[in-house]
Amino acid sequence: MANFGGHAIPGSFFLFLGFWLAMKHTLQHYWRTSQPKGRQIMSPFFKRIDYLEGGFLIFGAFVGIMVEQFVVDGPHAHLYDTESESWVKLMNWQHGTMYLFFGISGIALVASAASKLVPAGVDRLALSLALFVEGFLFYYHLHSRPPLDAHIHSLLLVPVFAGSASTMLEVFIRDNVILELFRACLFILQGSWFYQIGFVLYPLSGPEWDLKLHDNIMFITMCFCWHLAVALLLVACTSSVVWFTVKRFSGRGKDIEIGMRNTSSKASSQKALLEESDEE
Amino acid sequence: MANFGGHAIPGSFFLFLGFWLAMKHTLQHYWRTSQPKGRQIMSPFFKRIDYLEGGFLIFGAFVGIMVEQFVVDGPHAHLYDTESESWVKLMNWQHGTMYLFFGISGIALVASAASKLVPAGVDRLALSLALFVEGFLFYYHLHSRPPLDAHIHSLLLVPVFAGSASTMLEVFIRDNVILELFRACLFILQGSWFYQIGFVLYPLSGPEWDLKLHDNIMFITMCFCWHLAVALLLVACTSSVVWFTVKRFSGRGKDIEIGMRNTSSKASSQKALLEESDEE
Amino acid sequence: MANFGGHAIPGSFFLFLGFWLAMKHTLQHYWRTSQPKGRQIMSPFFKRIDYLEGGFLIFGAFVGIMVEQFVVDGPHAHLYDTESESWVKLMNWQHGTMYLFFGISGIALVASAASKLVPAGVDRLALSLALFVEGFLFYYHLHSRPPLDAHIHSLLLVPVFAGSASTMLEVFIRDNVILELFRACLFILQGSWFYQIGFVLYPLSGPEWDLKLHDNIMFITMCFCWHLAVALLLVACTSSVVWFTVKRFSGRGKDIEIGMRNTSSKASSQKALLEESDEE
Amino acid sequence: MANFGGHAIPGSFFLFLGFWLAMKHTLQHYWRTSQPKGRQIMSPFFKRIDYLEGGFLIFGAFVGIMVEQFVVDGPHAHLYDTESESWVKLMNWQHGTMYLFFGISGIALVASAASKLVPAGVDRLALSLALFVEGFLFYYHLHSRPPLDAHIHSLLLVPVFAGSASTMLEVFIRDNVILELFRACLFILQGSWFYQIGFVLYPLSGPEWDLKLHDNIMFITMCFCWHLAVALLLVACTSSVVWFTVKRFSGRGKDIEIGMRNTSSKASSQKALLEESDEE
Repeated sequence: MANFGGHAIPGSFFLFLGFWLAMKHTLQHYWRTSQPKGRQIMSPFFKRIDYLEGGFLIFGAFVGIMVEQFVVDGPHAHLYDTESESWVKLMNWQHGTMYLFFGISGIALVASAASKLVPAGVDRLALSLALFVEGFLFYYHLHSRPPLDAHIHSLLLVPVFAGSASTMLEVFIRDNVILELFRACLFILQGSWFYQIGFVLYPLSGPEWDLKLHDNIMFITMCFCWHLAVALLLVACTSSVVWFTVKRFSGRGKDIEIGMRNTSSKASSQKALLEESDEE
Repeated sequence: MANFGGHAIPGSFFLFLGFWLAMKHTLQHYWRTSQPKGRQIMSPFFKRIDYLEGGFLIFGAFVGIMVEQFVVDGPHAHLYDTESESWVKLMNWQHGTMYLFFGISGIALVASAASKLVPAGVDRLALSLALFVEGFLFYYHLHSRPPLDAHIHSLLLVPVFAGSASTMLEVFIRDNVILELFRACLFILQGSWFYQIGFVLYPLSGPEWDLKLHDNIMFITMCFCWHLAVALLLVACTSSVVWFTVKRFSGRGKDIEIGMRNTSSKASSQKALLEESDEE
Repeated sequence: MANFGGHAIPGSFFLFLGFWLAMKHTLQHYWRTSQPKGRQIMSPFFKRIDYLEGGFLIFGAFVGIMVEQFVVDGPHAHLYDTESESWVKLMNWQHGTMYLFFGISGIALVASAASKLVPAGVDRLALSLALFVEGFLFYYHLHSRPPLDAHIHSLLLVPVFAGSASTMLEVFIRDNVILELFRACLFILQGSWFYQIGFVLYPLSGPEWDLKLHDNIMFITMCFCWHLAVALLLVACTSSVVWFTVKRFSGRGKDIEIGMRNTSSKASSQKALLEESDEE
Repeated sequence: MANFGGHAIPGSFFLFLGFWLAMKHTLQHYWRTSQPKGRQIMSPFFKRIDYLEGGFLIFGAFVGIMVEQFVVDGPHAHLYDTESESWVKLMNWQHGTMYLFFGISGIALVASAASKLVPAGVDRLALSLALFVEGFLFYYHLHSRPPLDAHIHSLLLVPVFAGSASTMLEVFIRDNVILELFRACLFILQGSWFYQIGFVLYPLSGPEWDLKLHDNIMFITMCFCWHLAVALLLVACTSSVVWFTVKRFSGRGKDIEIGMRNTSSKASSQKALLEESDEE
């Protein structure tokens, strides 16, 4: 969707996902460090969080695909028009394909959380593939656009492919908080860069950008680094705030596990305890 | 062999290999997880499976080379024609070279299974090299073809080189079920993509594809992602079916080892037991 | 700053940083190897050294940004000139951005040293990103320059990106003295190559270099390898000198820890002991 | 040296080095596997072998540099000719630079063997850098040559850079016999490919090759894969022969350590025993 909204929606999605991941992984790191050594089980609290995240991804992907298909000027589930002998709205189909893979990563996350039979790391592999497919399709998107347009989109590939690589690394290096927060940072960077693309290509006010001026390309390159710096700052702040909030919240003498369970309602907490004992 | 059959044969080969690997590695994973901790020896059942797989690779490579050489319009073991001062049917020779390396990987697999002197991981290194050589020769194949032809072949390089890299990783990270199933998935993707190439370049029915239309390239790029999604789904299904079949088959109280031995005949099972005790 | 000084200043900075790192990591390696096994705590001496290094990076980055902004022909904090509708002195802004990330890595180093809550490796990640951003901005700097100018700058990317990759590796492989000294070596190489760029593009005396002559490019490529050889030699010498100096200094019977504490004043040494016992 | 001999000399050197490494690492692997668990010390026999290898590298590098400098049409230690204002025989200087780095890797190997203070892996890092520098200089060699010439040289980069990467990996993954034999294989491949380049560009007999014919490029690409297959075969054979020779040689009941010491003279063997007990 070639307008400001079409960039703001995925931008908001990735920004939200980035902050969510920063919070989730800080909580997990807090849990890990406050556990006595030897105990490796995760709290059912995190399992529920994973269900939530997976469900959000699946729901988001479903809505995204539906919107891309059945928007007014969408393909309405037609792929090939035999009359005009041409493909129908390939752009929307490509965006739908991207959503599809984020949906698959959501399914993998839910499956990982639901069953111990699913080997640890499948969720990360699926997320890595989702980012790879996103970057892969974007890469072939860039063909024959004006220089600044191509450049600003190619910069988007940096957080996408870096995110894919670092998430792939997480398949093998589990529970490394640096990798996890770095992933959150790359999602925030991707989200804010979507907004930047929207602002540059479809300015809400003011003059249009000259898409061929070399100085604009130089500025955008530098601007990308500023986004990275801000994303690092945001993750550091979010993480610190969550850490100290949980620390105060969980009290001094109280067990952190209890503190965390209080965040969910009492009834569901008991259910969770039952679930834990039911698992083989 | 530039026709539909020439793409369907390797396609079927890789599809079959992919499903085979998905089943084999699921069985191995089941075996590993159901073993008491500390026991690391593999069942002789898996050794026999490796002989089978290696033999299949060697046989397939031999047949492939022979067919490429002695097909009606093949080189018939002539490499250089001194009369016309030109190379004879280099395409067939190149395909034969690819088969050769899959044959070598078969030999390495048999050698690994047969002797403990062969260091663990040699089979994966040989398979990784076989995929590398396949991709390497394909890469220089693409010269001066029409855009869609070159593009659809270059997409084939994605599962080939990704497979080579992930198999190389298995030399160092042994017995990681995610890597193993991912390899199976990439083989299935490669196989189904061979079929796709056949359908696009040599359509069985309907009109020819316009090899220069940019929209076709965009569709094919997206179609590749769909193949990936289907390959992921197929591996997940195959793996689940095998897992639950073995689980039911091996019974509740019965030792899984016994259950597996029943799949081979009783006589060979006893032979296997003897082999196990004979090994140094 | 397109003159000799503009290359000599970062050159000196990186040379100094390289020698500093070679010394610091040799000391740390000496400390690690002379500790009885099982004891993993670092001496407070190294914590103070990290404060120093971090402070130096932050101070250097701050000064660098200020100089780039408020030098006579600088942008004076103006980014966009609405009158001429053009960006103001983007080169200076880009250099400032590079400094900014080295400043961030300084902050990460100080934070790592100050608190155990900061996960180990954050300082390396930040340094790796600083080098990545430096290389990233340089990469887009090279557009439309004469061949020798572009080539000599692109060679700078080798130590920058290699440094970024090897520092990233240090996030996962901690306390590996080879990686640490290799990083020092790459900083020295980068520093000396900045001087080389200065000498070639802005010769202090003698004739100008022909920026289009292919032989000059060939010489410069070879010259880069000589710089690498010299950098390896310098790190080896520095490291050896530091090692044997500390060995003699720390005495035969004396504990090395005591020897190291003597390098700082007695008063601060006692403070350090108190700090150590205060930490949670 | 642009003639057949100029390619045969490095070819022989790398072939010899490859076979040497295959033998050495098979012996080391035999030693490791036949040691009782827990004992990790290397026999002084291997230390002496490392001295020999390092000395050979240093000597070879020295001779190589001297020959490149003082051959009849060499630069005779002149780098810049002020009269004609041009560089003198840059090709010879570049080859000398390549030799220099192999000499440095020899020094690192000797230093590693001589002193325990040198961290394990420095020899591999130096060898990896030597290969990197070789590939780096070759890469910029290829400029403006006829297609087949450029292609056949660029294929040389495959074993060079693959060797550099796999040797770099050995810095972190020590004593992995697959990596070690793979390195030997890549050296043999490099050596045989140097010969191939010699045969193609400076044929000893028969007609010249057409350097622009695309079929020749296709053949050479395939030929490279055959060299790889032969190199794999040679390493497998060498390794097997060495393994079974040592096994027979060391006897059944005899300790392998004793068997190995017999390969050196009795006197030096006793000296070795003394050395072992002298080491700190």
